[in-house]
Amino acid sequence: TQQFDFTNHSHRRFNPLSNTYVLCSPHRAKRPWQGAREEVKKLNLPHYDPKCYLCPGNIRATGDVNPKFDSTYIFPNDYPAVKLEQPDYIDDEPKDTLRGKLFKTQAVKGKCFVICFSPKHNLTLPLMSIKELTKVIDAWSSLYDNLKKEADADIAPYKYLQIFENKGFAMGCSNPHPHGQAWCLDIVPTEVDHELHNMQEYYHENHSHMLGDYVRLELEEKERVVVENDSFVAVVPYWALWPFETLLMSKEHLRSTQDFNEKHKLDLADILKKLTTKYDNLFNTFFPYSMGIHQAPLQCSEEVKNASWFHMHFYPPLLRSATVKKFCVGFEMLGEAQRDLTSEQAAAKLQELSGDVHFMTK
Amino acid sequence: TQQFDFTNHSHRRFNPLSNTYVLCSPHRAKRPWQGAREEVKKLNLPHYDPKCYLCPGNIRATGDVNPKFDSTYIFPNDYPAVKLEQPDYIDDEPKDTLRGKLFKTQAVKGKCFVICFSPKHNLTLPLMSIKELTKVIDAWSSLYDNLKKEADADIAPYKYLQIFENKGFAMGCSNPHPHGQAWCLDIVPTEVDHELHNMQEYYHENHSHMLGDYVRLELEEKERVVVENDSFVAVVPYWALWPFETLLMSKEHLRSTQDFNEKHKLDLADILKKLTTKYDNLFNTFFPYSMGIHQAPLQCSEEVKNASWFHMHFYPPLLRSATVKKFCVGFEMLGEAQRDLTSEQAAAKLQELSGDVHFMTK
Ligand SMILES: O=P(O)(O)O[C@H]1O[C@H](CO)[C@@H](O)[C@H](O)[C@H]1O
Ligand SMILES: O=P(O)(O)O[C@H]1O[C@H](CO)[C@@H](O)[C@H](O)[C@H]1O
Repeated sequence: TQQFDFTNHSHRRFNPLSNTYVLCSPHRAKRPWQGAREEVKKLNLPHYDPKCYLCPGNIRATGDVNPKFDSTYIFPNDYPAVKLEQPDYIDDEPKDTLRGKLFKTQAVKGKCFVICFSPKHNLTLPLMSIKELTKVIDAWSSLYDNLKKEADADIAPYKYLQIFENKGFAMGCSNPHPHGQAWCLDIVPTEVDHELHNMQEYYHENHSHMLGDYVRLELEEKERVVVENDSFVAVVPYWALWPFETLLMSKEHLRSTQDFNEKHKLDLADILKKLTTKYDNLFNTFFPYSMGIHQAPLQCSEEVKNASWFHMHFYPPLLRSATVKKFCVGFEMLGEAQRDLTSEQAAAKLQELSGDVHFMTK
Repeated sequence: TQQFDFTNHSHRRFNPLSNTYVLCSPHRAKRPWQGAREEVKKLNLPHYDPKCYLCPGNIRATGDVNPKFDSTYIFPNDYPAVKLEQPDYIDDEPKDTLRGKLFKTQAVKGKCFVICFSPKHNLTLPLMSIKELTKVIDAWSSLYDNLKKEADADIAPYKYLQIFENKGFAMGCSNPHPHGQAWCLDIVPTEVDHELHNMQEYYHENHSHMLGDYVRLELEEKERVVVENDSFVAVVPYWALWPFETLLMSKEHLRSTQDFNEKHKLDLADILKKLTTKYDNLFNTFFPYSMGIHQAPLQCSEEVKNASWFHMHFYPPLLRSATVKKFCVGFEMLGEAQRDLTSEQAAAKLQELSGDVHFMTK
């Protein structure tokens, strides 16, 4: 009788962070592709673009002028999804009416920031030096510190800081100038809330941290490890949804950037550079993705804080080449996440590639 | 003091079907768009395309030849995500090892079908007649009946039939020939499983059906109703995620197409034609979307069957025009679904449009 073969037979894997499954159909990678292709933009960008609203010294849409910054620079988003100044909303629907049973509504306040990673218009994370990358990490961590101070002092109602980067046109990014965002909210967003809930449950059941255990297991098995250093490891998670998705985790229990020392910051810069270099080298392209940090909320119970574990998700859409992406559509939206190659196959491809030499600098 | 205004102030709305929130930032629709635009393909297609593998009489990639079908036609997918023939997999990881705690894996068997809605290469649902659309609904329902018979007789291990359509290149569809898919699996996919769980909980708490209550509420309030007839209603749900998302529900308790009579079938054909005509008229384009049916599993407990309520989700990506879509990226992937206009604003736009006269036939 035939043996079950993960690279040939359909199976689903459980994602304990999000409490969802992903369907893996590895044989399906063989089907021909006649659908949409991404356009590969020849990116031959100047250091400075007079029309870019993120370049130093330029005027933004709202009339504000950027200072002549020479390192990572944070400013408030001109089109924020949330604001601090808005009236309160009281949901006073009686719980026994249809509305009360079916509609739950909350006002959301907060503040949105744009983080220019570099003054140089034509850089991206993998092309920045470790020193420059450390400035980005400093910016993320000082943002966390400052907003937490405001929340602790009751000056602002902040609960969660979501730091993220949309990179590339395929990921809805409208400006190639290297930048990320940070949305600070008076609620804990759904995805983070679900993760924290599942991590807490795991802690109660096992008296150990889900991601601590997971780091140990992946370092033992090695198969899905893409890159690691003293403080961090990046893997294609067992339950990856996107073809080349990775999960970057701290090796020890760091709840947020507040637990980082200088070595942690340098190591995060190092692993970010290596991981994004590998990504770009995969299809010799400026590899698009959305990535972001999950860490302890700014305000939460001790229990939730303890359950938190610093990690970053990278969700890149490309599947076969610089132009063919994975579509998470019909079955994925209505049924279940679905992927065509196994996590182990994706990890093997990323392992082979250089994390030190970027294809642009060869 | 200022009043809270849903069209101006950020808030989040709870989706009781999926147990997630969506952040609504209505003022954000004002921001300028400099990002990616979808290409609008001039669709001047012939009735018959000799190179299309879905047209009657043509040869498919695997060498099979399509019959000269003259109505809706179902055949097995040549590149199925799941198959019936594969070895079993036994997850025998001891529960006290790291692997046992963190990795849950299941084999998945099943069968995938392609459903050609029409022999005519250049039609789409809104351009088909009610008579032709009824054939599509007959195909969906006979597929359900036949697969359920096989499952009931223990000939096949089927648990759930996911029927869906990816329409347009933006939704990963690789062939404009009007067609949908059906994946029949020996598991209940994550999204359906979560919905059924939440609907069951609602039923326990309220002794009434979540979607039955919801239909009543929407018919009372009218504001979010896009189109209705005797048997069905389509609304932009209070908790819509995609800009012009709709939820189409049966008015009475139909658990699956097995509960349909002839009048239900005609009424479903009617509302599908009207809804998709409105969609196309919104931006005078062949409006892309992924849509699909959620109904009772093929095999389940009486409790789950009772909790089921026939409904269809339409997830269209477009936001402002035929070329500008909503990107569900960084914050949406890592934090929470986010939208820029309220459900009520989207519904108002869809209400205005004709559901009877398609822009192509004017
Ligand atoms: O099966 P198709 O039409 O080739 O493929 C399309 O639908 C599938 C099911 O939603 C997706 O997994 C694919 O990414 C998409 O391109
Ligand atoms: O804020 P930006 O970069 O203009 O917008 C981008 O990121 C946001 C947050 O993920 C998304 O809501 C938008 O759809 C996307 O285009």
